[in-house]
Amino acid sequence: MAKELKELTKRSDNYSQWYQDLVIKADLAENSAVRGCMVIKPYGYAIWEKMQRILDDKFKETGHVNAYFPLLIPKSFLSKEAEHVEGFAKECAVVTHYRLRMNADKTGVEVDPNAKLEEELIIRPTSETIIWNTYRNWIQSYRDLPILCNQWANVMRWEMRTRLFLRTAEFLWQEGHTAHATKEEAEQEARMIQDLYADFAENYMAMPVIKGVKTVSERFAGAVDTFTIEAMMQDGKALQAGTSHFLGQNFGKAFDVTFIDKNGKTEYAWATSWGVSTRLIGALIMAHSDDNGLVLPPHLAPIQVVIVPIYRNEEQLGRISAKVSGLVANLKKVGVSVKYDDSDNKKPGWKFAEYELKGVPVRLAMGGRDLENNTIEVMRRDTLEKETVSFEGIEERVQALLAEIQKNIYQKAYDYRAVHIVEADTYDDFKAKLDEGNFILAHWDGTLETEEQIKDETKATIRCIPAEGDTTPGKCILTGKPSARRVLFARSY
Amino acid sequence: MAKELKELTKRSDNYSQWYQDLVIKADLAENSAVRGCMVIKPYGYAIWEKMQRILDDKFKETGHVNAYFPLLIPKSFLSKEAEHVEGFAKECAVVTHYRLRMNADKTGVEVDPNAKLEEELIIRPTSETIIWNTYRNWIQSYRDLPILCNQWANVMRWEMRTRLFLRTAEFLWQEGHTAHATKEEAEQEARMIQDLYADFAENYMAMPVIKGVKTVSERFAGAVDTFTIEAMMQDGKALQAGTSHFLGQNFGKAFDVTFIDKNGKTEYAWATSWGVSTRLIGALIMAHSDDNGLVLPPHLAPIQVVIVPIYRNEEQLGRISAKVSGLVANLKKVGVSVKYDDSDNKKPGWKFAEYELKGVPVRLAMGGRDLENNTIEVMRRDTLEKETVSFEGIEERVQALLAEIQKNIYQKAYDYRAVHIVEADTYDDFKAKLDEGNFILAHWDGTLETEEQIKDETKATIRCIPAEGDTTPGKCILTGKPSARRVLFARSY
Repeated sequence: MAKELKELTKRSDNYSQWYQDLVIKADLAENSAVRGCMVIKPYGYAIWEKMQRILDDKFKETGHVNAYFPLLIPKSFLSKEAEHVEGFAKECAVVTHYRLRMNADKTGVEVDPNAKLEEELIIRPTSETIIWNTYRNWIQSYRDLPILCNQWANVMRWEMRTRLFLRTAEFLWQEGHTAHATKEEAEQEARMIQDLYADFAENYMAMPVIKGVKTVSERFAGAVDTFTIEAMMQDGKALQAGTSHFLGQNFGKAFDVTFIDKNGKTEYAWATSWGVSTRLIGALIMAHSDDNGLVLPPHLAPIQVVIVPIYRNEEQLGRISAKVSGLVANLKKVGVSVKYDDSDNKKPGWKFAEYELKGVPVRLAMGGRDLENNTIEVMRRDTLEKETVSFEGIEERVQALLAEIQKNIYQKAYDYRAVHIVEADTYDDFKAKLDEGNFILAHWDGTLETEEQIKDETKATIRCIPAEGDTTPGKCILTGKPSARRVLFARSY
Repeated sequence: MAKELKELTKRSDNYSQWYQDLVIKADLAENSAVRGCMVIKPYGYAIWEKMQRILDDKFKETGHVNAYFPLLIPKSFLSKEAEHVEGFAKECAVVTHYRLRMNADKTGVEVDPNAKLEEELIIRPTSETIIWNTYRNWIQSYRDLPILCNQWANVMRWEMRTRLFLRTAEFLWQEGHTAHATKEEAEQEARMIQDLYADFAENYMAMPVIKGVKTVSERFAGAVDTFTIEAMMQDGKALQAGTSHFLGQNFGKAFDVTFIDKNGKTEYAWATSWGVSTRLIGALIMAHSDDNGLVLPPHLAPIQVVIVPIYRNEEQLGRISAKVSGLVANLKKVGVSVKYDDSDNKKPGWKFAEYELKGVPVRLAMGGRDLENNTIEVMRRDTLEKETVSFEGIEERVQALLAEIQKNIYQKAYDYRAVHIVEADTYDDFKAKLDEGNFILAHWDGTLETEEQIKDETKATIRCIPAEGDTTPGKCILTGKPSARRVLFARSY
């Protein structure tokens, strides 16, 4: 679309506005006519498709299969699991009628009062209830277990304050729901998925994450344990990038899902559930991008390489196109997604800015002098460095550069985080360091009261009890009471 | 899941019951707790994933991109296009509230009357309205065109009588929505997609289709022309397998989507929309399957080859497994989806019946004698023919057999259809041939009244005005009035 390229707000001026500008200007998503629901535009959706393909392959490699369960959930299902109802049966979209009719003055349609549902239906905020109601009929014996299902779906939570990708009323996600014969197996599944998510975040999104377990108050409603991966954004805030829940027998009991075990005894099935969502696109943007626009890791970039010809006339363009066509074919052959942009209604400078904004990892440019010298200009998006190199062997150079960029983006995020995870041993120090945009490892007395007071006073929450790191006991920063170990605090999205 | 294999109802006894039995017993789908909404089970969903992958590749090859638009549509949008409202603003799920609360006696949740939406929202029955409302902001100049978006999504139509896959309240589909600068380009797009769908149906689903255009009364609500592909099921009924609509400027006008054309004039944008759904799984089942179960064309079979060992003891199983492991690896290497079923809790006979029921195209079995003779038993699902062949070169033989099965399934369906498309020149003959389970090419006077009377009296509809075939004029079978050409009548799903 031909439109003016406008400057982004700088991160240092207003991080939140920078994010908003970037999502819109890079054509990733926009708000829709329906409050809180976004339109994911083709460029944003292409990133989601890349994420989906990689994750889906990983789920299948680890024995999972996809299925599809209904969008709508009977209202009564939500109240079957005592904690689940507290967490999810609140802000949600309720279907009460199933028909419209022409209004009296024929100017439009209205709800037909005669078409009221006997029981209201809820648009799924998450699918544990409808799925466990289904599993009841799938499970009789331990031989029917494990069940390892995933679904790619839309879900809806009626959020009051929404932000594109990060918090929207409707979002896209995958939700895994597994059933097991033993506690150990279910716990192992939940932890395995946490590792899978961490691997995806670090090796594909180039985003280092901290693995840990949630406190009781931050747990998924209905879970025994919630395993999380937490990432640091460039403003020092945390973003929960994926969660995997060990649900114990809570849903087995709520939906009466029992099986005969190896010893002939009747047992309730053990459950896990886990999900990542289009929120990850928000995380990807905030973890790496800069004041010029998106910085996308090559593994997730819809376009990995763009080639821009710089020409004075049609004859020169023809020569450049001829020279470049083999390169395009060769890159495609080795699986590199490449675009040759010879559109004639935009100047090279406009194109350069556009592809920088869109975070294309490698930009190649070829002009008249390059034709003469058998060279090509290479620009890498992560560092904005340019160099003119020989056209010979350019395919290998581009591939190596993509790998190097992937690594560098991760390292940059890792280094940033390394200096922004700090310890605090007093509450004043805690508050000061928090305001400087840090994750804070601090002692906590383990009580809900302390956790809530800190949250109320500082907006920081316990992101997780980290799986790795210092486990030395100490004293709570707020109450001075004994603390088993340091936990991770941060403000979060 | 360990469960009893039960006989299917025979097609000749009760075709409809046979279909229902098969969907359930082959673990494709089941009804859910929500009226009219199905659970698509892993085996059924795996077929859908294969369909999606193939179609998605074809859409991308032809220049389309994926995007995602909101699930919910403001009620008022549905009334903006005069004909669209008639077709879609009737039986649909209406969201009226956005919150639940605990009820007075704390036994469950109820709708919070204070959380009533100002304007009701409709779960999309199709997305033309919300998408064209979005396109208004995407389109200013002819340079912004064409827009070639597709989305993979769930939609909902509150059907009164539902059947798994064929007609469900919620279903999964893809919906393409394109915007163009000229009438010609939009029409060409709609026809190109019809061809793409026909290619998919014939070369992947192995299901011959008749291409044609719908009559006014059978058109999509809001379309200028609806292009369809119609398939014949084994009971002689028609199934509309995919439609592609040329929408003219109807949605451009309804949502005020204009652009400046090459001559500087303001014009309304031209539109198409097109979709296929999980209904295709129903078509696939009904087109090919038999009294033993599913018959799946290899291109869409989740498991293309199953290998069953027949052994007397662990030692023998070990030798079979060792011998077969290379075959499994080699088949996977060439992209064949293969399963080696050495589960020890089911007898070979049970497995044979199970994989027949599930329509696995090729079954290989190896027993003690095969070990001695260096042979393997090959069974093809389409004809149920078995032969024992040399183990040498089995990979090539299996690949050739898969290609042969794909071709044979298509040919069988084609031959069946060839003898069941007949002409009728009197109304009595028409009715008799219809009752025998035929598609009928007959003359029609072109009026809505005649079309409706025939429908009322015989339940046959005009499936399409075929794109190919006899165009000789004649006399209407009902009224005797002049007819421009024969059209295709059938009873349909």
